[in-house]
Amino acid sequence: MTGMLTIAGLGPGDEALVTPEVSAALADATDIVGYAPYIARVAARDGLILHASDNRQELQRAVEAMRLAAQGRRVVVVSSGDPGVFAMASAVFEALEASPQWQGLAIRVLPGVTAMLAAAARAGAPLGHDFCAINLSDNLKPWPVIERRLRLAAEADFAIALYNPRSASRPEGFARALDVLKQAGCGDRIAIFAHAVTTAEERIDALPLQDARPEMADMRTLVIVCNSTTRRCGRWIYAPRRVS
Amino acid sequence: MTGMLTIAGLGPGDEALVTPEVSAALADATDIVGYAPYIARVAARDGLILHASDNRQELQRAVEAMRLAAQGRRVVVVSSGDPGVFAMASAVFEALEASPQWQGLAIRVLPGVTAMLAAAARAGAPLGHDFCAINLSDNLKPWPVIERRLRLAAEADFAIALYNPRSASRPEGFARALDVLKQAGCGDRIAIFAHAVTTAEERIDALPLQDARPEMADMRTLVIVCNSTTRRCGRWIYAPRRVS
Repeated sequence: MTGMLTIAGLGPGDEALVTPEVSAALADATDIVGYAPYIARVAARDGLILHASDNRQELQRAVEAMRLAAQGRRVVVVSSGDPGVFAMASAVFEALEASPQWQGLAIRVLPGVTAMLAAAARAGAPLGHDFCAINLSDNLKPWPVIERRLRLAAEADFAIALYNPRSASRPEGFARALDVLKQAGCGDRIAIFAHAVTTAEERIDALPLQDARPEMADMRTLVIVCNSTTRRCGRWIYAPRRVS
Repeated sequence: MTGMLTIAGLGPGDEALVTPEVSAALADATDIVGYAPYIARVAARDGLILHASDNRQELQRAVEAMRLAAQGRRVVVVSSGDPGVFAMASAVFEALEASPQWQGLAIRVLPGVTAMLAAAARAGAPLGHDFCAINLSDNLKPWPVIERRLRLAAEADFAIALYNPRSASRPEGFARALDVLKQAGCGDRIAIFAHAVTTAEERIDALPLQDARPEMADMRTLVIVCNSTTRRCGRWIYAPRRVS
């Protein structure tokens, strides 16, 4: 058996958003490796071994996946959304660079629908004009870098998708991010809070940024701070294509 | 028959990247509306009417789709990639805002795998850290806005996905964009040219931005200018998760 390491995105939650390419990889796998809540989305079957691990175990998980693939197994590392957006793909390549013995492994990355696209679709089209995506987790980057990017993104008038806005271990960062954006003149912009998008717990709220409260977000929330030209039309929120 | 207007993304090209949600919408439709090359990706069948239109006909296309849905038809407006990223969703909502008689229409937006995610997956994980997406078409926004955003994106050290880099009708813009990025200190960054990603004509090239030539891109190319910390590991290119 020739081993293969596949890094796949399960989409935001709804099974109807898992691409056929990823479904085929899961059906062909011998081993699935991932954070426990994502592993829980993969149907168990005879011959399939599920390796669930804790959060923040990305590098150990990547090493485990490479070790299994090197033994000839067909391993799928799963992330929610897209594996290349603040998810497992970077961690696997970091681990690969540190592991010369595995650099001949067959590896492929299978894209998925990342959370901001699903959140935007529910709200209308807030990413219809230029936009950026910023990970608010400061586990791996200093907070001043985050603040600086928020200020520059506001100045560029990008719509701003904020991933991982808030967790129990770092409750303060999102409040600071909201303050930075208000100070940067974004108070009148529309903020969209998309909670657990495409799942049974989905909830979409939209309000002016200046009225947003930090506790409106948790780790299952994707926040989009719209650009300054974004408009409402009935229940829909969209970024016009034309700017002057 | 109750009309429904669905705005759907077909993904970057490979049928294995069309979500089951979108496939179901296409199977249930009476009418498909879109730019001719995207319409060509939808299989013909009895009872399905294909309405192909030219490029730059977005608003007329949106009005036609709403008119059909208001007659009770089940209409799917198709875009490649994700419909909310530089595609038809914004155009439909613009047309909706101008058409009070249609504001009671049932509308839904179905996300898809946008080109930058597929391009990133082929290259490795260049969008594994904070990034932005900029549409280089200046049909609907003045060129100085584009230049300003490129400069701010470089200053923020975002990876920069460039959509619609170059067309026959505006061959100069991409050369200017490369110059702006070089002047902003991005010459050493890795530039990825992903042509016709996930199709039979796919070609992925990567080189230092300072060596990139404008003619390397056309309208079927998605360009990713990596952030300054992005590394190569064998054939893979990835943005490390940690920055200092």
